[in-house]
Amino acid sequence: MFDCIIIGTGPAGISAALTLKSRGKNFMLIGSAGLSAKISAAEQINNYPGLPAVEGGALKAAFMEQLAGMGISITQASVTGVYDMGGYYGVLSGSDSYESKTVILAVGVEAVKPVPGELEFLGRGVSYCATCDGLLYRGKNIVVVCTSKAMEEEAEYLASLASSLTFVPLYKGASLSGGNVTVITGMPVAIRGSQRVESVEFRDRVVPCDGVFMLKSAIAPSALVPGLNAEGGHVVVDRSCRTNLGGLFAAGDCTGRPYQYAKAVGEGNVAAHSVCDYLAKV
Amino acid sequence: MFDCIIIGTGPAGISAALTLKSRGKNFMLIGSAGLSAKISAAEQINNYPGLPAVEGGALKAAFMEQLAGMGISITQASVTGVYDMGGYYGVLSGSDSYESKTVILAVGVEAVKPVPGELEFLGRGVSYCATCDGLLYRGKNIVVVCTSKAMEEEAEYLASLASSLTFVPLYKGASLSGGNVTVITGMPVAIRGSQRVESVEFRDRVVPCDGVFMLKSAIAPSALVPGLNAEGGHVVVDRSCRTNLGGLFAAGDCTGRPYQYAKAVGEGNVAAHSVCDYLAKV
Repeated sequence: MFDCIIIGTGPAGISAALTLKSRGKNFMLIGSAGLSAKISAAEQINNYPGLPAVEGGALKAAFMEQLAGMGISITQASVTGVYDMGGYYGVLSGSDSYESKTVILAVGVEAVKPVPGELEFLGRGVSYCATCDGLLYRGKNIVVVCTSKAMEEEAEYLASLASSLTFVPLYKGASLSGGNVTVITGMPVAIRGSQRVESVEFRDRVVPCDGVFMLKSAIAPSALVPGLNAEGGHVVVDRSCRTNLGGLFAAGDCTGRPYQYAKAVGEGNVAAHSVCDYLAKV
Repeated sequence: MFDCIIIGTGPAGISAALTLKSRGKNFMLIGSAGLSAKISAAEQINNYPGLPAVEGGALKAAFMEQLAGMGISITQASVTGVYDMGGYYGVLSGSDSYESKTVILAVGVEAVKPVPGELEFLGRGVSYCATCDGLLYRGKNIVVVCTSKAMEEEAEYLASLASSLTFVPLYKGASLSGGNVTVITGMPVAIRGSQRVESVEFRDRVVPCDGVFMLKSAIAPSALVPGLNAEGGHVVVDRSCRTNLGGLFAAGDCTGRPYQYAKAVGEGNVAAHSVCDYLAKV
């Protein structure tokens, strides 16, 4: 049983992890081991105090060095559900499950709405994380929907594993090559299947497949946590980053605007302190 | 008329300034040009994301470099009052006054309660800032109450100006030398005078003087702004850092725990965005 599971490796999740470590808590940090794609994608950040005119790559390197220096490792996984078990939380990632007294959601925010079928088949053929689940699709036929050029690297990794890959970039200037790659333009209409994903439907065709990777920088929190209060796509929190569920906290872009590194880092810190307060009382 | 006046040069004030600058606003940053004494006093900070195991001195240097690089200057002054003028704010500093559409309070928090008479004589013999007001007391007799060793440097500066200086350290291990310095231990009981300060009363003596410097790292917000909602010494704000007064925002330690760099920096960012939203609507 962990004291806390932090979901997300953007600035908010990292800030929360640094503070929980300083406070000697037993926690797990789950997300992409390469950190949130939004971090390295930043061209230049002028208003993050202490790091003048920092570029995304340099910020990522600084974060990675700091985590390593504090002895914090990232559990590379894609969380498919968070369940209130009455006094503790169950966190599911594919077929793995973890138990924790508290959870901090630091999952960021995603402008793109879920495709019909995406949430239903999450963990049953739909994945959000190439590095986490890629190996499950070695030699298989997959569809990869990619929302930003910063995540093309993950698609390339998948192309090296899959038998055939249908690439669906939702941005301009995409480039993904390989003998097994077919590029399609246009939004997917629906993800279809019975027990597991069987195909992806487009306006003009249907692509049969074994799995779909939705490479987005964030997952809708309400898709992850049944019963969580959300408004306009944002988790509702108070000034202590508490949600409507006891022991479940949220920080960073997923709690609303401004979508800023400084704000995310501040909320990660506050959420970690609220976790410590909560643990002291139960 | 400024778009905004930021009061305080700790992490919250600096963060707000960087963001207002990025947004092209016409603002003034008021405080100690050497930044908040709490910054350089920090031994080592392990949980400020992006700057691993940073010491106070290095953090101060990074902030100073960043402010200079962005072309942000600090107006060295000690604010004695903020007044709601109906649609804009008047900010007083001794005999100077400034007008601004909005104000961000980032004044930190001070554990030491005000001495009776301190708030009444603020700007009339009582000062919080040696660098700001020191020259007014050249060749005069002053009392200096100092709450932390980190601010001893300001007391030394005052000793170089004053005719006589009565030094009242409220901590152990104080060291201030000079032919014109007398050291007294014990809290002042009251600051006395009619139009201006005339003396400081202690339990066992009364020290006549022309002025009193209270070297503290923060000023009580309710002492600065008539009508401001405060609770337990903290400014009451919502998640957007709005106070009960329209156009007046607060950020950092003055809004409550946790007293953390990351939290302060986050709130400075949020307050600056709220200022922009407010300016867009009026």
